Amino acid sequence: MVKTEIDYDEMLSALGRRLQPNAIRKLTLLLGSKEVISLAAGAPSFETFPIEELADIAARVIRDRGRFALQYGPTRGQSAPVQAVADLLGSRGIEGCTPSQVVMTTGSQQGLDLIARVILDPGDVALVELPSYIGGLIALHNAQAEMVGVRQDEGGIVIGDLREKIDRARSKGRRVKCIYTIPNFQNPSGVTLAAERRKELIDIADEHDLLIIEDDAYFDLYFTEDASRLVPLAALRPDRVVYLGTFSKVLAPGLRAAWLRAPEELAAKVELAKEGADLSSSVLDQSIVIEAINEGLIERRLPELRRFYKVRCAAMLDALERFAPAGSRWTKPIGGFFILMELAAGVDAAAMLPEAIDNGVAYVPGQPFFVDGSGANTLRLAYSKESTDAIADGVERMCCVFQNARAQARA
Amino acid sequence: MVKTEIDYDEMLSALGRRLQPNAIRKLTLLLGSKEVISLAAGAPSFETFPIEELADIAARVIRDRGRFALQYGPTRGQSAPVQAVADLLGSRGIEGCTPSQVVMTTGSQQGLDLIARVILDPGDVALVELPSYIGGLIALHNAQAEMVGVRQDEGGIVIGDLREKIDRARSKGRRVKCIYTIPNFQNPSGVTLAAERRKELIDIADEHDLLIIEDDAYFDLYFTEDASRLVPLAALRPDRVVYLGTFSKVLAPGLRAAWLRAPEELAAKVELAKEGADLSSSVLDQSIVIEAINEGLIERRLPELRRFYKVRCAAMLDALERFAPAGSRWTKPIGGFFILMELAAGVDAAAMLPEAIDNGVAYVPGQPFFVDGSGANTLRLAYSKESTDAIADGVERMCCVFQNARAQARA
Repeated sequence: MVKTEIDYDEMLSALGRRLQPNAIRKLTLLLGSKEVISLAAGAPSFETFPIEELADIAARVIRDRGRFALQYGPTRGQSAPVQAVADLLGSRGIEGCTPSQVVMTTGSQQGLDLIARVILDPGDVALVELPSYIGGLIALHNAQAEMVGVRQDEGGIVIGDLREKIDRARSKGRRVKCIYTIPNFQNPSGVTLAAERRKELIDIADEHDLLIIEDDAYFDLYFTEDASRLVPLAALRPDRVVYLGTFSKVLAPGLRAAWLRAPEELAAKVELAKEGADLSSSVLDQSIVIEAINEGLIERRLPELRRFYKVRCAAMLDALERFAPAGSRWTKPIGGFFILMELAAGVDAAAMLPEAIDNGVAYVPGQPFFVDGSGANTLRLAYSKESTDAIADGVERMCCVFQNARAQARA
Repeated sequence: MVKTEIDYDEMLSALGRRLQPNAIRKLTLLLGSKEVISLAAGAPSFETFPIEELADIAARVIRDRGRFALQYGPTRGQSAPVQAVADLLGSRGIEGCTPSQVVMTTGSQQGLDLIARVILDPGDVALVELPSYIGGLIALHNAQAEMVGVRQDEGGIVIGDLREKIDRARSKGRRVKCIYTIPNFQNPSGVTLAAERRKELIDIADEHDLLIIEDDAYFDLYFTEDASRLVPLAALRPDRVVYLGTFSKVLAPGLRAAWLRAPEELAAKVELAKEGADLSSSVLDQSIVIEAINEGLIERRLPELRRFYKVRCAAMLDALERFAPAGSRWTKPIGGFFILMELAAGVDAAAMLPEAIDNGVAYVPGQPFFVDGSGANTLRLAYSKESTDAIADGVERMCCVFQNARAQARA
């Protein structure tokens, strides 16, 4: 018999059935069209985009090198940007980095997806921070890994909890393959991994033969005078670490120009996986990025970018100090885009979001960042997008909603 | 004990171990730097890139809309290009196509990878043409599908063989999920699926509840007066077909702007898979493409592009007629970039490639395109990259190598 009614659900793979909407991205996109103060969007401010310079560069690379910039390119990336990334990593203390360790990716998201696919089988354990970046969690989820959360405090990942979680997983006979970490100005917590813990983390990885997936998207955007404590794990132990970075935050995310650096054997596998995934990232985007690097456009703008976000971060911290309800606390970032706010226990940040939006301000409820389902009383605040005045106004409106909810709960 | 020697092989997933280098892409890249006439590279000629127009457009979209064109964008793609693709599909006879069916992808390769991941579990059977496009085969391979080859003749996929292969797989208890087909000017065979077989293919898909993955990368590049026979399978039976197309061949492949059109339920799953895979494709590339569409740049250039490739195809067919060794035959494309040449049985096209390269010409041996390991006596010839003179010269050199090999074999 001919089957004409099609049951698409029945055609899906295990992954197809496993795919879930990203709560945060949906919210962010939804808010894009609303007139609210957005403390939700984790995107760089468009005010930081060097529009004129990029317009000139784009026209020039197409005119002068269009036969290459508009043609198919190598999967790993054009040789100039790959070499530039290898050099950049040298400047971050990762010694002996060669082009054979580097793969250009369509955003760091692709690097996360590819390395997850290359190393994780269904049921393998991936350790992740509580809370952690949703995009990284999605990549691990889609590789059908079992994610186990590890607590963080103001010094980043809690080493004792990490050891305990590894032991527990192993005692259940699980294969623990990797730790996914964002050591600098973490998304969403804003905390930075303490120097001594970096060393301990590597010791644990050595001890248990784990790979560290280090997502360092915000490295360049520090507010501190002394950046030496931000040293990548990849600089301490390159053989153990897959290190991811991006030009999204320091140039423009629409260009989708990021990179992954891994031990040569793994980089070769990631390159092969990428060949099947998209052949290559945008060649034009890479051509623009390398020109921006060569002209010194990126390097030159970093001090200004750091000031830009530092001022906004200070405005948010100041507003929280003034308006936050009693019983709440928040992190004090030394870089990046985010503050994690923790409300009194039992308060539900997601439940108050509609009212906050009605009052003209949006944030991201924290729970989806916690793989163990905790964090209902937390929220992520981004200071990257709005002006200092809007940030102060937004925090006040938001805290007013939180105060009212407290008052009502008591009444 | 601390483990400091790292065994990366031991860290790989099943996919990580399964990944294999793409023979053809390696060859193509290798040849990029050599001074040979390349009948190997399946890329559009850079002479077809509208350099000046794209330089102007790129600068303009960055200047006028940089705050969007350089920012993160929706996973599915910006609304304008998504709507433009929906409209384009209407013009190809796919009725009722809405933006909810369209996802912009980083090249068609990403569309192939995502749909394969969304529908195929390890061991599921995917039917593929003998020969077929390597990139499609890699995507299916990486989804750990079992690929079963179906014969083609000058009218495309052989329906009797298709039925037989389905029956055989089912009798072994295998789940047959999809047919991957390139109905127009197939890569690498150059053949076009006959009109009556299109109908039969859909009947078979209905009968066995299969999905058709239709890769129509070359649709616009036909040499025939009557394009009505090129009607997409997706126009005949949209509910059964995932339809992939690209702006790579009609604008520029370095932009990585392609699209996938699927029944809404599957498009939603592909969008979710893409969110984990790269968040979004290059927003700048999409912004350039929509501007090129709105200005009529793509549409306006099609007649010229068709002439460009038709003339080169004719030059290659003419040269083959003059120089090909007795006992060989080749396809006669009515569009696209490729001719498949079949040498006498027992001749090994791969074995003669080094000598051909020494004589200043390169082609792609056919065997890697055949999932059943056949095709050793075939080769893919691309007429897309070189001038007509170079094509004639290259075919003569190549055939001279083939003739010498014959003579030596007899001696």
